[in-house]
Amino acid sequence: MSAHERAAILAIGDEITLGQKTDTNSGEIARCLVEHAVRVTEYSAVPDDRAAIADALTRLALTNDLVIATGGLGPTADDLTRIALADAVCSPLVEDGSALAHLRERAFTRGRSLSPNQRLQAQRPESATLLENHNGTAPAILAALTVADGSTTTILCLPGPPREMRPILDAFVRDTLRAPSGTVIRTRILHAPALAEAEAGGRLGELMDRERNPLVGTTASGVLVDIRLRYEGPLDQAAAALDDTEHQVRRAIDPFVLPADAPSLQHAIVELMRERGAILATAESCTGGLIARRITDVEGSSDVFDGGWVTYSNKMKRSELGVSDACLDAYGAVSAQTAREMAFGALAHAPDATCSLSVTGIAGPGGGTADKPVGTVFIACAHCSSGEGEPTCLVKRFIFPGDRASVRSFTANVALAMLRFELLGIDPGCLLAEVPNTG
Amino acid sequence: MSAHERAAILAIGDEITLGQKTDTNSGEIARCLVEHAVRVTEYSAVPDDRAAIADALTRLALTNDLVIATGGLGPTADDLTRIALADAVCSPLVEDGSALAHLRERAFTRGRSLSPNQRLQAQRPESATLLENHNGTAPAILAALTVADGSTTTILCLPGPPREMRPILDAFVRDTLRAPSGTVIRTRILHAPALAEAEAGGRLGELMDRERNPLVGTTASGVLVDIRLRYEGPLDQAAAALDDTEHQVRRAIDPFVLPADAPSLQHAIVELMRERGAILATAESCTGGLIARRITDVEGSSDVFDGGWVTYSNKMKRSELGVSDACLDAYGAVSAQTAREMAFGALAHAPDATCSLSVTGIAGPGGGTADKPVGTVFIACAHCSSGEGEPTCLVKRFIFPGDRASVRSFTANVALAMLRFELLGIDPGCLLAEVPNTG
Repeated sequence: MSAHERAAILAIGDEITLGQKTDTNSGEIARCLVEHAVRVTEYSAVPDDRAAIADALTRLALTNDLVIATGGLGPTADDLTRIALADAVCSPLVEDGSALAHLRERAFTRGRSLSPNQRLQAQRPESATLLENHNGTAPAILAALTVADGSTTTILCLPGPPREMRPILDAFVRDTLRAPSGTVIRTRILHAPALAEAEAGGRLGELMDRERNPLVGTTASGVLVDIRLRYEGPLDQAAAALDDTEHQVRRAIDPFVLPADAPSLQHAIVELMRERGAILATAESCTGGLIARRITDVEGSSDVFDGGWVTYSNKMKRSELGVSDACLDAYGAVSAQTAREMAFGALAHAPDATCSLSVTGIAGPGGGTADKPVGTVFIACAHCSSGEGEPTCLVKRFIFPGDRASVRSFTANVALAMLRFELLGIDPGCLLAEVPNTG
Repeated sequence: MSAHERAAILAIGDEITLGQKTDTNSGEIARCLVEHAVRVTEYSAVPDDRAAIADALTRLALTNDLVIATGGLGPTADDLTRIALADAVCSPLVEDGSALAHLRERAFTRGRSLSPNQRLQAQRPESATLLENHNGTAPAILAALTVADGSTTTILCLPGPPREMRPILDAFVRDTLRAPSGTVIRTRILHAPALAEAEAGGRLGELMDRERNPLVGTTASGVLVDIRLRYEGPLDQAAAALDDTEHQVRRAIDPFVLPADAPSLQHAIVELMRERGAILATAESCTGGLIARRITDVEGSSDVFDGGWVTYSNKMKRSELGVSDACLDAYGAVSAQTAREMAFGALAHAPDATCSLSVTGIAGPGGGTADKPVGTVFIACAHCSSGEGEPTCLVKRFIFPGDRASVRSFTANVALAMLRFELLGIDPGCLLAEVPNTG
């Protein structure tokens, strides 16, 4: 098969166009294609509607040489990708003998017989081939659609569940997509937590010129700014061009940019702690485990994470972290003093911890007061000094915007950014300049 | 403005088509439109490319009477929605005086001056109007595109950050979209955790006929199956038709379906615990806080959640939950015995808890053995009986498929499903029938 240059991605399902489910497959497929120098021109998503699916496949095939679709291959009556594909490629559905045998065997090893619904998954357009699915029942379908000018577009229909989709996509890409000898696309992404997007744009200046190669773009989400580099040109110049641009970006917005090998703030923190032999404990109230979850998302985080507490009730703050009655009575659970005692308590109770992060706040929607409105959060970061001495502790107050999920997400991001700056020995004051807060 | 019947949603940004960011705005917009009886015919996503954006707006305007776009309105050089919209509606960009004054004032109250980049955000196509953004600098743009047949399509361009996008969308929908007097669309979604999709499809049978109204569809993600109901017809028959179909669905797959008012498994659990006066504590190892986070996602969960431990290290399992050396030595941290001691420890140490959930397992990629491969997880659920007596505890072993994120997600979902069945007094054996496990 010849090299593909332009691809479109199609997500199929009422659950997507009704907004009941977020499509994450298209992003995975795009990353995979971009890595192989295929330009993704468009995503599209259509409902479980035979004509809409067939029309979308036909339209996307017109201006692309590869279309990858996901979804609609399951065993139920709303799975219409097979028949729509048959319409689009003008080839009738037939039952594939070897796929049927495979489905029967799969059912048999589970002590069941094949239901009529499940049997539908052995069908394919006569001119298409099936690709085996090792993690589910529905095989993928590979077909070719000949467009008006006589050229051929490859259509790959993948199952919707990501863990079924992924291995088939990987195998297809590995076996089928050859990088063209000429131009390649290479991307790089730099993460800058705790920076405002306009500030990033101002500092980057001419680096963001749209005619530049590598192209530099920014995207903001809460307090996380991503800086995207996109190189298009000869393969042998890609690495040097990206390295040079990355260097300029880093110079423009130090110390915000994470190391190149850190896919996220939590990855950067785990690596930094590993380098320094630091061990973390967490004490969370309003985030309810979100910070611990973020840290433990990282493979190998057990080397640097002792564990944590979710002290949601005041009783648990007292009994598990030793927060004093005096503190809770005088200042309340949402206070700098309670955050400090939680951080010190975590440091004292976690067997091996050398530093701790605590948060207490009002995520809402209830619980706000005039004095402490919804969004008020105190974050404390404590650590043992290298010498003897008492541990030190930094506490900051913030007022984060948005709903419960937004406040919790801001809190986790800013807490992790504070921890990173502390580990780097940078005054987190610069962090606060751009984050909504009251001092 | 007349009623809109067909809408398309366009997400703009390299970060999306390069797969660097998942688009969640389109789903939010779709839910909002569907609620107002507008049929979403398609999502599309295109790169930060002036021609691609203008082409997409023009194409979508041809077959829809409303197009809502997000992204590309920021202050940086890769924000091209303004100019592309000007191209599409054939109206030159002008600077909007009142928007400029607003931007200046906003900068002034922050003690800064307006940068040239930020000033671009006051531009709009001459024929368009700006809608104020109370949560950011970039106003939204509302324009009209006249298509070949002389009809007019409304184009609304919203800022990309969800918390800026949301209020403007809500105001637009409230002020502009009037439900047509004839046909309405109403959807309902039923969640069935711990059920296999083929099993659901088999049990639902003819309810899933594609000609049926309300239409019934299923979507699976891990062990969570969603059953989607979609009614299209006269408003006055909508509720009865959906109620009747929901009743039939529930009868077909009891006891898996969550109550209608529970948007998620954790919401159902919090409500169930509130009804029974139960209080939960969690003890997590491999999920690292994910279960506590899921519970505390629910507003008001503090009524039923005492708190939890993330005992990532063995030392913390011992010191905080009292897991015995004998147990850890004889069976290891990933064992039924350790899960049981963790659950009992959480119940004993949490001041008010009446039940507890513990998990210990190997999320991978490292740590697997022949005996306990990656994906091996033990889940324990303990609760105090209503009378005196010792607390009881149920422990189950699972082997979950996929990568670290998949194993952690399966674990949290199955643990929460186990807790729900325990609270309902249903033998969770039926849960295990369809979940990958070894007994």
